[in-house]
Amino acid sequence: MSVKETTVAIVGGGLVGSVMACYLARRGYRVSLFERRPDPRISMIDGGRSINLALSNRGWKPLEELGLADEVEKLVIPMRGRMMHNEEGALTFQPYGREGEAINSVSRGGLNQLLLTKAESLGISLGFESTVADVDFEKGILLFADGSFFTADIILGADGAYSMLRYQMQRTERFNYSQYFIEYGYKELAIPADKEGKHRLEINALHIWPRGKFMLIALPNLDGSFTCTLFLPFEGDCSFEQLCSHEAITSFFREYFPDALEVMPELKEDFDDNPTSSLVTIRCFPWSRGKVLLIGDASHGIVPFYGQGMNSGFEDCRVLNELLEKHNDDWQKVMHAFQEQRKPDTEAIADLALANFREMRDLVADDDFLLRKKIEARLYELYPDKWIPLYSMVTFREDMRYSVAKRRGEIQQEIMDKVMKQEGFRENWESADFSWVINELAGRQ
Amino acid sequence: MSVKETTVAIVGGGLVGSVMACYLARRGYRVSLFERRPDPRISMIDGGRSINLALSNRGWKPLEELGLADEVEKLVIPMRGRMMHNEEGALTFQPYGREGEAINSVSRGGLNQLLLTKAESLGISLGFESTVADVDFEKGILLFADGSFFTADIILGADGAYSMLRYQMQRTERFNYSQYFIEYGYKELAIPADKEGKHRLEINALHIWPRGKFMLIALPNLDGSFTCTLFLPFEGDCSFEQLCSHEAITSFFREYFPDALEVMPELKEDFDDNPTSSLVTIRCFPWSRGKVLLIGDASHGIVPFYGQGMNSGFEDCRVLNELLEKHNDDWQKVMHAFQEQRKPDTEAIADLALANFREMRDLVADDDFLLRKKIEARLYELYPDKWIPLYSMVTFREDMRYSVAKRRGEIQQEIMDKVMKQEGFRENWESADFSWVINELAGRQ
Repeated sequence: MSVKETTVAIVGGGLVGSVMACYLARRGYRVSLFERRPDPRISMIDGGRSINLALSNRGWKPLEELGLADEVEKLVIPMRGRMMHNEEGALTFQPYGREGEAINSVSRGGLNQLLLTKAESLGISLGFESTVADVDFEKGILLFADGSFFTADIILGADGAYSMLRYQMQRTERFNYSQYFIEYGYKELAIPADKEGKHRLEINALHIWPRGKFMLIALPNLDGSFTCTLFLPFEGDCSFEQLCSHEAITSFFREYFPDALEVMPELKEDFDDNPTSSLVTIRCFPWSRGKVLLIGDASHGIVPFYGQGMNSGFEDCRVLNELLEKHNDDWQKVMHAFQEQRKPDTEAIADLALANFREMRDLVADDDFLLRKKIEARLYELYPDKWIPLYSMVTFREDMRYSVAKRRGEIQQEIMDKVMKQEGFRENWESADFSWVINELAGRQ
Repeated sequence: MSVKETTVAIVGGGLVGSVMACYLARRGYRVSLFERRPDPRISMIDGGRSINLALSNRGWKPLEELGLADEVEKLVIPMRGRMMHNEEGALTFQPYGREGEAINSVSRGGLNQLLLTKAESLGISLGFESTVADVDFEKGILLFADGSFFTADIILGADGAYSMLRYQMQRTERFNYSQYFIEYGYKELAIPADKEGKHRLEINALHIWPRGKFMLIALPNLDGSFTCTLFLPFEGDCSFEQLCSHEAITSFFREYFPDALEVMPELKEDFDDNPTSSLVTIRCFPWSRGKVLLIGDASHGIVPFYGQGMNSGFEDCRVLNELLEKHNDDWQKVMHAFQEQRKPDTEAIADLALANFREMRDLVADDDFLLRKKIEARLYELYPDKWIPLYSMVTFREDMRYSVAKRRGEIQQEIMDKVMKQEGFRENWESADFSWVINELAGRQ
């Protein structure tokens, strides 16, 4: 069957589903995209509230390949580093990478709308309010909640962490699956623009209020506001359970986030109106059954602490497209190769994302940790091709697989442990000779 | 609400469901038991083929508490040790425990029928061919596939590793869940009785043909036959995938299990007729939602290599009954206490069962391993209250929690590693002084 005669149904019209749809339409496939929710370009699904994400290199590359970089550029605000707020409101800035390197705050809704419009312009049929109820994996048939059917040669499940296609797959033979929730929930809150429509905090930064067992973060929006996210345990001391009155909320913010409280006039309303959501890691294998392949969060939902959920999903699309090219659109080969190649990489980013929560909420305010970061920055400056900090490998090196970044990060951490144990090092590190460090690193790779 | 006014619905009329039903009926509850399959006392659900299990101390204790020990005694065949068969058919016997200690081969079907009859005699209402389609956790309503409803104050999900109640629970908030399949499948085969109705192999043993990457086992039945189980990888060299013709099957058995082949006249027919089944480990938490509590395989399905699937399920029933007693039948308290207490124990046996597969298929034929077993038997003989081999703690010490047994086993293994490294020890162990071993063990507990 030629590409032009091949029908691909994509379940899920979110970010990953629409990017994959564009790739496939450009290859010549007949693509139909089905989305459970209404068209977000008509009805504002998130009630006007902006949820923003950090777009970094692994996400940019596919957008560039699809010719969307210029348009997306207009939607983003570069964030060049972390701006830490301590309990007195004092600020410390830690650059994410080197000069010119930044991650980009982008509205999920705005980006999704752009991608859907692009998909439509490529001739993709868009079906909104289409809820999948069941699937025949071998015959490639989708059954919808309204009783209608759709038959496709290939079905891609891009229907997110709570994927219906994966839920059905779970009942098939020998499907390995896990869903693990962390003890923390999150709630979105807002810092509105000031009276002149300007940002009330430094615009080109991701703001963090790290407090050990919990944290608040804020990402800038184009309209002058920031979207904040409070990450807090569900139960116990300092938990969502405890914040059950306006008084408790205000006094909690006054104690831990006094400078944020000053710029959050709608805190109490936001707290009441916005849900407390949970944070899950999804792992499964295989990703394909018959004519169906899972991509994005459907096969590897991760926690948001490395800012790689969307980026890893877009990378899935790029890799899948590369494999279609390599294997002449032979989907049997491609599905197999895709899951074999991507599984270790998505496992790596799932683990890194869980580990980074500790770093964000806790270690970024730790002196020892900050010194390590400075030394790593120095090493990176001195040996830019040899010592690349883990954060940079994950965020800025789209040519390096997640699994490789994770492994190199582990080796570098072991070496840094040795460095930090050297006598007198803390006092004299600025004049230290690091050549042995690089030799040791080279010997371990 | 008093116990007599409390309705308990049990979903699943297998071994665990019927034992729990008996406990609750004795406490005075109104118990209704629902089972998807027909009544096994009328229709033979396994087509007359016997599937047997190893009943050991943790399973006996609840049966004794229910006054069923004498009746069950008539159904079992004690197995006092492992009978290893090598590739030439030579036999080696390893006792499981000390004099008088044995595990017991019992037919799943026979035991289930006895338990259902006992349940019925206690006034429990039995509903067969009742397939649960959905559940309301908060209201305690079961919806059946035929459209009927049943409302209960408490619902127990004893519906096995592929539990429908757990499947529904998985869609509720913050439910941690995993299902992991090993790369091996299994197939049941038979060694029929000889012409005089006698057993063709030693009756009081669990027979093992360990072959490194795979194995065959056989358990005795009352009718003179043995039920064998072949554990083999699904794919690759020496796999079910490879055994695709009668020729391939016979030549595989001739090479690896020649003495078994001689007593398996129906091998080819069995191989064709019996399914190749998969082996899963189920972990989840919490085990309760609203009025529903999961027990047995539904909350902790394990692989069969420690012979503890049924035993751990029966232990669930005993513990749940103890907690009802302790908390005066306050189910809110009991459900909470049950999952907190049992979760670490069932995690421990899940891990031990996975680890024991390697021991059974591989190590039991290893000289070093056999020497360790001999030394451990000696230590057990010399210090019966201090050094108890892991297998004995799990199998014969129903008063010791699985989690404690696992931890003690790890400590003992570390000490045994030291013992085995001592110079000249292998030659002279029979005259060695082991007092330092016991001192070290005491120091670590």
